[in-house]
Amino acid sequence: MIDLAHATHAVHAAALEQELLSDIPLTRAMALKATGYDGDSLTLSAPLGPNVNDKGCAFGGSLASLMTLAGWGVIKLATDARALDCDIYVQDSSVRYLAPVWEDFSATARLADGESFEAFFAALAARGKGRLRVHVTVPLADGVPAATLDARFVALAKR
Amino acid sequence: MIDLAHATHAVHAAALEQELLSDIPLTRAMALKATGYDGDSLTLSAPLGPNVNDKGCAFGGSLASLMTLAGWGVIKLATDARALDCDIYVQDSSVRYLAPVWEDFSATARLADGESFEAFFAALAARGKGRLRVHVTVPLADGVPAATLDARFVALAKR
Repeated sequence: MIDLAHATHAVHAAALEQELLSDIPLTRAMALKATGYDGDSLTLSAPLGPNVNDKGCAFGGSLASLMTLAGWGVIKLATDARALDCDIYVQDSSVRYLAPVWEDFSATARLADGESFEAFFAALAARGKGRLRVHVTVPLADGVPAATLDARFVALAKR
Repeated sequence: MIDLAHATHAVHAAALEQELLSDIPLTRAMALKATGYDGDSLTLSAPLGPNVNDKGCAFGGSLASLMTLAGWGVIKLATDARALDCDIYVQDSSVRYLAPVWEDFSATARLADGESFEAFFAALAARGKGRLRVHVTVPLADGVPAATLDARFVALAKR
């Protein structure tokens, strides 16, 4: 049996990856890939090589960028799935760098506790503007987070 | 009369730029430049072109990266000036994106209110570890900040 939802999610994540690589030059420099999407959480990945810092571990700016893009992307995929045409902006973010990252890394984004796409879509439909908070982590190989990002995004419907 | 302090600062900022471009590949992709240093504040700049997002304005990850590097750099230049050999890590940061940036941009970092290099150098000498908070802004052409970053850094003396 074909898992249609799974296949659809993979197609959408691949399209998002192409969109990011096409529209945001820095994602090409980072060698970003979309490596996981299940409808609720999105994982973006990057190799260490192009993303190192002076110490040879992952550059904080690369970690912050990948986490910000994962947060942006999990909202973008949800609006795309509803064929909603809107611009999504990050408003603020808080990043914790907990451990140096000496390997290829990935960032997994999901909605923050208490947030729901339903309330967001309702606000977007009613007022042309919706807000969402996301939580993103960069796990080490053992699952312990090396970095986390909590961010607020706003989506503005295109008229 | 030659302003020796000014000339020395310019040499140090140029050396920092070369170090960043050499050690951190993403700074090359961003086309980062060190454009101002007076001993207290450091300004790093980047052209919009390689740093755009899907909307054609500055990518949040580029803004966060430039601000993080400016904060890191203002501490690095102070430790270099004292010939202190240490690794400097960002621990956490809080970023506010206040307005879209449609032009080439720069980030100016200085110590946060209440912070001093003297206390930092004393801690580094006594315990091999020092912490500093920095405040960074990306001003628009009219001086109003388009983005701000508040971050904590830790420096670890190399033994």
